[in-house]
Amino acid sequence: MKLAVDAMGGDDAPRAVVEGVELARDVRDDIEFILFGDEAQVRPLLKNDHHIKIVQADEVIGMDEEPVRAVKKKRKSSLVLAAKAVKNGDADALVSIGSSGALLVSSLLLVGRIRGVDRPGFTATLPVINDDRGFTMVDAGANADAKVQNIVQYSLLAKYYVENVRGINNPRIGLINNGTEADKGDMIHRKMHDALQELGDKGQINFIGNVESRDLLNGVTDIAVTDGFTGNAVLKSIEGTASSIISMLKSGIKQGGIGSKLGALLLKGTLKKIAKKMDYKKQGGAVLLGLKAPVIKGHGNSDAETMKYCLTNAADVVKSGYVKAITDHFNEHEINPTDEVIKSE
Amino acid sequence: MKLAVDAMGGDDAPRAVVEGVELARDVRDDIEFILFGDEAQVRPLLKNDHHIKIVQADEVIGMDEEPVRAVKKKRKSSLVLAAKAVKNGDADALVSIGSSGALLVSSLLLVGRIRGVDRPGFTATLPVINDDRGFTMVDAGANADAKVQNIVQYSLLAKYYVENVRGINNPRIGLINNGTEADKGDMIHRKMHDALQELGDKGQINFIGNVESRDLLNGVTDIAVTDGFTGNAVLKSIEGTASSIISMLKSGIKQGGIGSKLGALLLKGTLKKIAKKMDYKKQGGAVLLGLKAPVIKGHGNSDAETMKYCLTNAADVVKSGYVKAITDHFNEHEINPTDEVIKSE
Repeated sequence: MKLAVDAMGGDDAPRAVVEGVELARDVRDDIEFILFGDEAQVRPLLKNDHHIKIVQADEVIGMDEEPVRAVKKKRKSSLVLAAKAVKNGDADALVSIGSSGALLVSSLLLVGRIRGVDRPGFTATLPVINDDRGFTMVDAGANADAKVQNIVQYSLLAKYYVENVRGINNPRIGLINNGTEADKGDMIHRKMHDALQELGDKGQINFIGNVESRDLLNGVTDIAVTDGFTGNAVLKSIEGTASSIISMLKSGIKQGGIGSKLGALLLKGTLKKIAKKMDYKKQGGAVLLGLKAPVIKGHGNSDAETMKYCLTNAADVVKSGYVKAITDHFNEHEINPTDEVIKSE
Repeated sequence: MKLAVDAMGGDDAPRAVVEGVELARDVRDDIEFILFGDEAQVRPLLKNDHHIKIVQADEVIGMDEEPVRAVKKKRKSSLVLAAKAVKNGDADALVSIGSSGALLVSSLLLVGRIRGVDRPGFTATLPVINDDRGFTMVDAGANADAKVQNIVQYSLLAKYYVENVRGINNPRIGLINNGTEADKGDMIHRKMHDALQELGDKGQINFIGNVESRDLLNGVTDIAVTDGFTGNAVLKSIEGTASSIISMLKSGIKQGGIGSKLGALLLKGTLKKIAKKMDYKKQGGAVLLGLKAPVIKGHGNSDAETMKYCLTNAADVVKSGYVKAITDHFNEHEINPTDEVIKSE
């Protein structure tokens, strides 16, 4: 299996990427890595190039560039060359910690959508307090202006992703809404609820109805489907609150003198467990669902360790057969009639 | 000053309400309370009726009733009678911990909107980690289908509320969005940003641009303006995450044996500080902004102590002169031209 890796993305590029690739290579013998980037910068960072190939890329797409223009103009950029490698079948998946927008555009234009999918959606897999499985949110932010058919497609994409990659059979699917009753929500979320209910009634998904964001960490659902605007807001609220409380704990311990430090030592197990639960580093990045090959986006501030999890996660997604499963589904079932209209936009 | 109190709302009605009224009366000599409810149930719960008057209400609006129908049909309900008392000038503010929807409808129909306001919005005042002031979110859920002019009005309502009630001069106002750059967001949030920017350029508000939900607890803004759907999702995500982490801490301490309990004792100061920060009980309920008199909604599960804070907060809002300040603003400035159209819906 081969992973196409954008070596030039992220805050600490290419160092974090290259070191992460070596960490992943050292724990996984089944992956070959193709690093797209400036060889003069990348090569010196490599300890050894076993299972690692470097492909020269003369350009880099920056975080502030307008995505569509950047992807169309910078044909020799590390990201575009990596996406092309996936398109041409030279690699099985694409991994980047650079600009989300540019990754989205290059995936749409080069990797291509699965037939039946209008817009790809980002996953975010988050912890659940009394359960090691966590829950998966789709869309976590790829498509802020989601329409009803996008939400229907996300529910199916997420179902096959969670079944195949996370090993949860017939996962529960809930729609994030402002109340659990069927008639809750603004106008579009009421329509989304009804469309998901219809899909559930047809037996295509295990739809459990509306869920509230306050119950997500309690394990109310395996999959939380949402538009990208709300998903982004919920995800960032959860991350922000967790990190604020953890930083209050840390500063309280630090400022509290020796008794406080002893207290923290005695509570080490609990504090570590909480920090581990809330640590997004091991979650392996966000997977962009709906494309013909897995595309994985890690945080821009990923370090080598976080990058390692993105890469091994990418390999797991490739191995899972998720893309085939969802492709088969859309081949067997009627495709939403609006699909072709949107494709020809 | 007189507060009209719906005695029959909430999970533990009328007990929690009546006990809360007595707690508030015992700390504040400047408030007279009019309790609307079933006297046969309310009277026996009262220890003494100093500054407390009971007005018989034969009906109660339940949590599951359709709000518009319930308010129109149940003319003798505790909520409708309390709202009428405010309308007739017999009370200065309305307080309820019953159905939000019914409170919203009775406020619109009976208390009435300030000229220039299309839709009222709920406040939620939340903690900020390194600051005792916190921030205020509007709308926290009254109006899920917010339009651009609603958001503009919320920014003004919130400005005068935060200046007069919370004592923060020229408060910073941010729009919750999926990135801080001016062009971020789905279509409607981009338009909301531009309208707020225009109002800021005119000097009517101190608009600081888009803010992300992950930065709210860090004090990035004094006021977070948002549509009611996103506001609800963000609020519930913050509450859910805080309560999940706190329950992980508690169960870790409980299950951890004697060392763990000693650790918790040594860390008591820090743990208490966090629990206090994240405790919504003292925040005094959500204020429904944009009406001719203050309307305060407490959590349905409020106990007497929480109810007390709702009542003293209501009195503070009355005293603050907030309603006059925002009314003056709308009298001095041009009213949004869509206003009359919406009023005549």
